[in-house]
Amino acid sequence: MDRIESVKNPKVKQWKKLHTKKEREATGTYLIEGIHLVEEALKRKEMIKLLIISEELTLPTHWNVDGLSISLVTKEVMKAISDTEAPQGVAAICDKENEHPIMNWKKVLLIDNVQDPGNLGTIIRTADAAGMDGMIISEGTVDPYNSKVIRSSQGSIFHIPIVKGSIQNAISTFKNNHVPVYGTSLQNGVPYKEVSPSDKFCLMIGNEGNGVDGALLQETTRNLYIPIYGEAESLNVGIATGILLYHLRG
Amino acid sequence: MDRIESVKNPKVKQWKKLHTKKEREATGTYLIEGIHLVEEALKRKEMIKLLIISEELTLPTHWNVDGLSISLVTKEVMKAISDTEAPQGVAAICDKENEHPIMNWKKVLLIDNVQDPGNLGTIIRTADAAGMDGMIISEGTVDPYNSKVIRSSQGSIFHIPIVKGSIQNAISTFKNNHVPVYGTSLQNGVPYKEVSPSDKFCLMIGNEGNGVDGALLQETTRNLYIPIYGEAESLNVGIATGILLYHLRG
Repeated sequence: MDRIESVKNPKVKQWKKLHTKKEREATGTYLIEGIHLVEEALKRKEMIKLLIISEELTLPTHWNVDGLSISLVTKEVMKAISDTEAPQGVAAICDKENEHPIMNWKKVLLIDNVQDPGNLGTIIRTADAAGMDGMIISEGTVDPYNSKVIRSSQGSIFHIPIVKGSIQNAISTFKNNHVPVYGTSLQNGVPYKEVSPSDKFCLMIGNEGNGVDGALLQETTRNLYIPIYGEAESLNVGIATGILLYHLRG
Repeated sequence: MDRIESVKNPKVKQWKKLHTKKEREATGTYLIEGIHLVEEALKRKEMIKLLIISEELTLPTHWNVDGLSISLVTKEVMKAISDTEAPQGVAAICDKENEHPIMNWKKVLLIDNVQDPGNLGTIIRTADAAGMDGMIISEGTVDPYNSKVIRSSQGSIFHIPIVKGSIQNAISTFKNNHVPVYGTSLQNGVPYKEVSPSDKFCLMIGNEGNGVDGALLQETTRNLYIPIYGEAESLNVGIATGILLYHLRG
């Protein structure tokens, strides 16, 4: 265990850089903070590279931190690496996971270009709740290791595998594996309740303003829409995802 | 049409006060801003008491503002009354509606103590999309005329009647009218798919952290829960509302 007092310590500078997507991609790691998120991460200790604890914090007695690397830091250091107004005194650096058995997935969410961190976080939480095997997100989607996404995921970022990759390739892969792929579209497609629930399906959702890319919609098994009965123009993308996932999984 | 140049004009001070719940309740009016929201409000012109237009703005040609009171203001005045960083140059003062034929409602959403403005706005948008007849919200729920709620509702605040009142009274009223009332609860109740879709139902949702008040859950026809298949502890309240409304309405 080391102890870091100065906000100018090179390690502190390094940790702060993890607020940028560039640094997260270069190192394959990301920073989380707060009691709840660190507690969720502790359930899969092998992910945690370093626990960062403010020296005035008393760790919850039920936490088991045996075997973990720990840095004790001053309140000032914790404040410097935090992006919240009232840091809770604990943070961690986690390893992204890279190897996922995509070929075995039977219930999959594909994300094409979702931009809002709060939306993506809520979608991750919803996909976890709905028991999805994993998610594949396009390059253009907001980085899931962005701190706002992690916060809105309420810890689900640690529960469900997320892979960045080509949505087009994913569509072919799952169709070849006899997993039907459903796009979502306001213009074309069938009301979602026409598709029966199943234990094998892949749902594709798209950008908040523009929906799923038109070329991708050509590649799907079928495209679905959620009927609008009132005067709203559309549903929020997270709400739409919840309605569709809970219908499709039965 | 009058023209207001100074941010110290008493009218400007009056308009700014509408950012407080107290003033909105005292006057029965609220302030909206931005092209999209004002355009939605124009669909029900009788609600608009005053249109406030920045003098450098050219109104969209398809807007019909005949018969409306208009104040032209300087950019500085618009900035003073706005709570966004980049005001779009148009705002309006609207009348809250107070008389709603609750007794005739057959598809109703009851809101007990939802606190987050973004959640309430999304819920209003979702209830509108699902074709609900109206919403009844508890005194403890965030004010629906709060500007953040209005923004996240994406205009649906103008489409669906919202009444503030006692949830307990509402439960009795609808049960007496033979409209079944469903509470939502993680602890007790039945999986929501056990209830068949119907054109008559009342759904009650609750606070983000604590759910629906326990005493209210005693009064319902039945209480429902949404199964969690993964490791998430719960669903976001807006997502849960979407899943339940779209299931119940069939």
